[in-house]
Amino acid sequence: MKLEKLVGERFKERPADCVIDSHALMTRGGYIKYVASGIYSSYAALRRITRKIEQIIREEMDAIGGQEVLFPVAMPASLLEESGRYSSIGDELLRFADRNGSPMVLGMTHEEAAVQLTREYGQTYAKYPFMIYQIQTKFRDEQRPRGGLIRVREFTMKDAYSFHVSQDDLEDYYARCHRAYERIFARAGIPEAVAVASDSGMMGGSISHEFMLLTPVGEDSIVLCSHCGYKANLEAAECIVVNVASVGQGAEEKAEAGVGAGLESDAVAEAGSQDGAGAGAQAVAQPLEKIHTPGMKTIEDVCAYLGMDVKDSCKAVAYRLASTGGLAVVFLRGDLEINETKLRNYLGDEIGPADLSEGGALAGGFIGPYKFGVGFSQAPAHANALAPTSVPMLLFDNSLKGTANLCCGANELDYHYTGLCISRDIGGDVEYRDFAKVSASGVCVCPRCGKMPPSLTVLRGIEVGNIFQLGQKYTRSMNMRFTDEDGGSRYPYMGCYGIGVGRLAASVCEARHDEYGPIWPMSIAPWQAHICCLRAGDAEVKAASDSLYASLLADGVEVIYDDRDVSAGVMFSDADLLGVPIRVIMSPRNIKEGVCEITARDKSFTHRIALADAPAAISAMVAEMSKA
Amino acid sequence: MKLEKLVGERFKERPADCVIDSHALMTRGGYIKYVASGIYSSYAALRRITRKIEQIIREEMDAIGGQEVLFPVAMPASLLEESGRYSSIGDELLRFADRNGSPMVLGMTHEEAAVQLTREYGQTYAKYPFMIYQIQTKFRDEQRPRGGLIRVREFTMKDAYSFHVSQDDLEDYYARCHRAYERIFARAGIPEAVAVASDSGMMGGSISHEFMLLTPVGEDSIVLCSHCGYKANLEAAECIVVNVASVGQGAEEKAEAGVGAGLESDAVAEAGSQDGAGAGAQAVAQPLEKIHTPGMKTIEDVCAYLGMDVKDSCKAVAYRLASTGGLAVVFLRGDLEINETKLRNYLGDEIGPADLSEGGALAGGFIGPYKFGVGFSQAPAHANALAPTSVPMLLFDNSLKGTANLCCGANELDYHYTGLCISRDIGGDVEYRDFAKVSASGVCVCPRCGKMPPSLTVLRGIEVGNIFQLGQKYTRSMNMRFTDEDGGSRYPYMGCYGIGVGRLAASVCEARHDEYGPIWPMSIAPWQAHICCLRAGDAEVKAASDSLYASLLADGVEVIYDDRDVSAGVMFSDADLLGVPIRVIMSPRNIKEGVCEITARDKSFTHRIALADAPAAISAMVAEMSKA
Repeated sequence: MKLEKLVGERFKERPADCVIDSHALMTRGGYIKYVASGIYSSYAALRRITRKIEQIIREEMDAIGGQEVLFPVAMPASLLEESGRYSSIGDELLRFADRNGSPMVLGMTHEEAAVQLTREYGQTYAKYPFMIYQIQTKFRDEQRPRGGLIRVREFTMKDAYSFHVSQDDLEDYYARCHRAYERIFARAGIPEAVAVASDSGMMGGSISHEFMLLTPVGEDSIVLCSHCGYKANLEAAECIVVNVASVGQGAEEKAEAGVGAGLESDAVAEAGSQDGAGAGAQAVAQPLEKIHTPGMKTIEDVCAYLGMDVKDSCKAVAYRLASTGGLAVVFLRGDLEINETKLRNYLGDEIGPADLSEGGALAGGFIGPYKFGVGFSQAPAHANALAPTSVPMLLFDNSLKGTANLCCGANELDYHYTGLCISRDIGGDVEYRDFAKVSASGVCVCPRCGKMPPSLTVLRGIEVGNIFQLGQKYTRSMNMRFTDEDGGSRYPYMGCYGIGVGRLAASVCEARHDEYGPIWPMSIAPWQAHICCLRAGDAEVKAASDSLYASLLADGVEVIYDDRDVSAGVMFSDADLLGVPIRVIMSPRNIKEGVCEITARDKSFTHRIALADAPAAISAMVAEMSKA
Repeated sequence: MKLEKLVGERFKERPADCVIDSHALMTRGGYIKYVASGIYSSYAALRRITRKIEQIIREEMDAIGGQEVLFPVAMPASLLEESGRYSSIGDELLRFADRNGSPMVLGMTHEEAAVQLTREYGQTYAKYPFMIYQIQTKFRDEQRPRGGLIRVREFTMKDAYSFHVSQDDLEDYYARCHRAYERIFARAGIPEAVAVASDSGMMGGSISHEFMLLTPVGEDSIVLCSHCGYKANLEAAECIVVNVASVGQGAEEKAEAGVGAGLESDAVAEAGSQDGAGAGAQAVAQPLEKIHTPGMKTIEDVCAYLGMDVKDSCKAVAYRLASTGGLAVVFLRGDLEINETKLRNYLGDEIGPADLSEGGALAGGFIGPYKFGVGFSQAPAHANALAPTSVPMLLFDNSLKGTANLCCGANELDYHYTGLCISRDIGGDVEYRDFAKVSASGVCVCPRCGKMPPSLTVLRGIEVGNIFQLGQKYTRSMNMRFTDEDGGSRYPYMGCYGIGVGRLAASVCEARHDEYGPIWPMSIAPWQAHICCLRAGDAEVKAASDSLYASLLADGVEVIYDDRDVSAGVMFSDADLLGVPIRVIMSPRNIKEGVCEITARDKSFTHRIALADAPAAISAMVAEMSKA
């Protein structure tokens, strides 16, 4: 088509509200238009890209036996009540009532609809396995949309659902889908996307992976080990710190940490020896001593005041539980942070920060495990014991295992203790669990091989797809059963597999751009070739350009043709913003010499080709670059 | 693909809740699954059909210069407030609040989003004309979904919006789009769809057409004249009855009726003379006489009691206005019905039936125009004078023009008048307007040529598409302007053009089916060929079928392959339900003779073809049938 007819605005200035490049370039290039927070319209340039992405996805889903279906965007609440998610999902689920007052939702994912669609069909084992998928609009009422198409409220998503007679068959199919995803991301132009182990969150099930495009502007954190290849979302990565040899108990606790994480003993030994320089190896147990620490509410302040390393402290973080309103206090080593996803999963509840204002039962800023709970009737140590009460629940992170002589809050305004030894002062039956975030600062080891930084790093990434082994969560709750070969009645196993189409387009832009615009790969580029007719007023140039345009169209090449009466500067900057892989420059000087100049948007080549040979040459380039 | 892997249930029994055939067949054939009232999921068989329909629409929209874009399903209410439709559209518009309490809507149509997307782009005349379209999910909260995919709440729609610098250019483009629609319906398999003039309803604008598939199960009524080709939705068709020669005033009133409708005088004369047999031509004016009509509340009862023809009566129909709560009483000839669309358009308000229970100021069942309003302070005769008051508004339908000696209610319980002459008894300044439905019962003439039945008929139809000239309604209200060649600032002219994808699929099914299933045209069929391997247990038959299946796939034919171990009856009834155009029957007897039997689903041919020639023959048939 002719560029002058392309609806959409292109402009030079980076919009002030665009934090990341893909957002800025897609706004500046006439790809997207802001409608409301997290809601955009797509212009034709983007729609051409997303249609190609959709087609790539469709082909790869069909290749692994998928059948394209279509579920509703608006669904009755009763459908999600069957699985229990109507109440368990938070405010991201858009709930509304129709004109008759019936409660409904806008679909975020369609596990329930997939079960409802196939519950009657899948009544005998012979029908299995099968996979259905759709490419459809989703709505998630995100609290904080950001980054243009990276985190939106409304988006087009491919969501697939597979059904199996056994966990083994699910795992086989999961692996096939994993490979299909690798092909999709490679074909769409980001072969570097990596699969990382992830937290299953509201989806349920146990094993899941996210496909991540590593980029500093990503909103997810990913733990990677260059030694063993371990990759996991920070939300899901086990945090292992090895505290050795505190007060003579080192050997046992070290071994315990190693076994708990499935580490090889060599790795633990190495980790232990590396860590040996810190936290009081072979330390002599000190007595508890209460110290006046006026106004020092952060563990950093206290440690600085006491001249101690922050890792030799026990800090407390308090949370309010969403459904019960109760408090949970987590103790962990002072140099680590809470992984709220792990805490949320353990508690089975949404959590928020607890406001421990002064004057309450808890001395905010001065909480510690020793004599905690004095003044409370009972301090339950288990999530199961949690009742709608004001008695806080106490939780201990693994990082406190094997420590000694820590400083901690004294549960009294302006006082801390030193010399805390948990096994001595709190009791030997304290249960430790994993509530901490992996840190690449030098204290954590790889959960798989036990290596420490620099092998272990934490990088940022954009999640471009995810795959989940859901198991029987939905089929059980929604009573989908099949008769097996022996006549028994069983629940099928499910997997689900998602890719956000718009986010993938934006991610490719994020990975493939320069300061002037996106550099679209041939596979998803809005057009394959872009003709710039410099000096359209020159009859000879115009005629040659028109002729080339007609030839390329006749050859089935997708061409955008710029024959506007504008300067070369405007023409090139618009071409940069549209990011078409092959650019053909028709200038008076070139035409006089009987050639045109063909350059790659990614600057990988520039050719001068005889005008007569140009159509064939360009078609050949398109074919060649489509393979890549 | 193999039929045994096709997700979806097929069954024999017509579901009790399916009133129309397409609904029954699409349910029985595993095309759709009920999720909630007016909300369905689509199985793969239907999704394959709708994808083909979408592609046909896309090609035809692109061919008239359209650019595919994508608007949001969920939009902020503020966008529809700009045009005024947030308050003017009724409960079909799904309104909800997001997690922050911001009012939002689910898109029914996207005029506002189209203006918002292009308001900055279209600032100079040189950008015009342009057309953008999308294929996207819509939600209309219909009170009464019905007929499977015919009237649903959630549906996929192609909606296009064109922008022009002048009404002339809009009209030119409107005609192009009209032709594109004819091509779309012809390609999708219903070339018989006809364009009829329609009411513009909530869309605004003046000229609009609907494309109708005529079928007795349609929910729209269409007025057609076989003499002049006039076609209009009953909602929009002008109702002209010619009452002649009442009390010596016949000539003038007859002429007036003719002019008002733009009729040729010959036509009116004919109509007049045909009608002359009725309603008191050359009648002598009778005096008003009050008659006791105890308990006779319908005009039919009264006329029967009085021995009068119903057409010699003046009946009253009362409505309650939605926004003001006021009453409107419409008087019309007793043998006609109110066209509520016309009344709604005149009042500019939603209307509902008025409950005139006994004891109120109005004697329900006995209302008449003479001495109406006695007991009311004032009876305004114009919609403009309407205030939130209990004083009813009086309206007179055109059908009362030129009448005499009518019976009518006496505004008193159990009494009617005879001898009503409106000009004498009510006054000569009564304003008549068109509020009646065209009737094919013999009293109405064609609004264009003036012919009466049997030329004029009223048939039922399904609306499969619509096109609207919106004019400047949205560009004015949303302040979209462009600078014209002379530097002036003007509002562009808009057109909009819709097609419901699912409804079109169902309409094709309604038009093309037999008692056993749909008969899909090649252009939108879920598969092109259907192989029935009778006796899959016979190794020779199975081998030949497998080989044919592989050959056809290699040739790019879309094949569904039934090699299940089921009876021929089950196999054929499933094939009938899937409605694939070409069926290939592989049976032991055929295979022995080295042939297969190829039949058309529409029974137009049966061939016996040598097995070796079958792939080429089938490919050729597919190509040939794709042309049709």
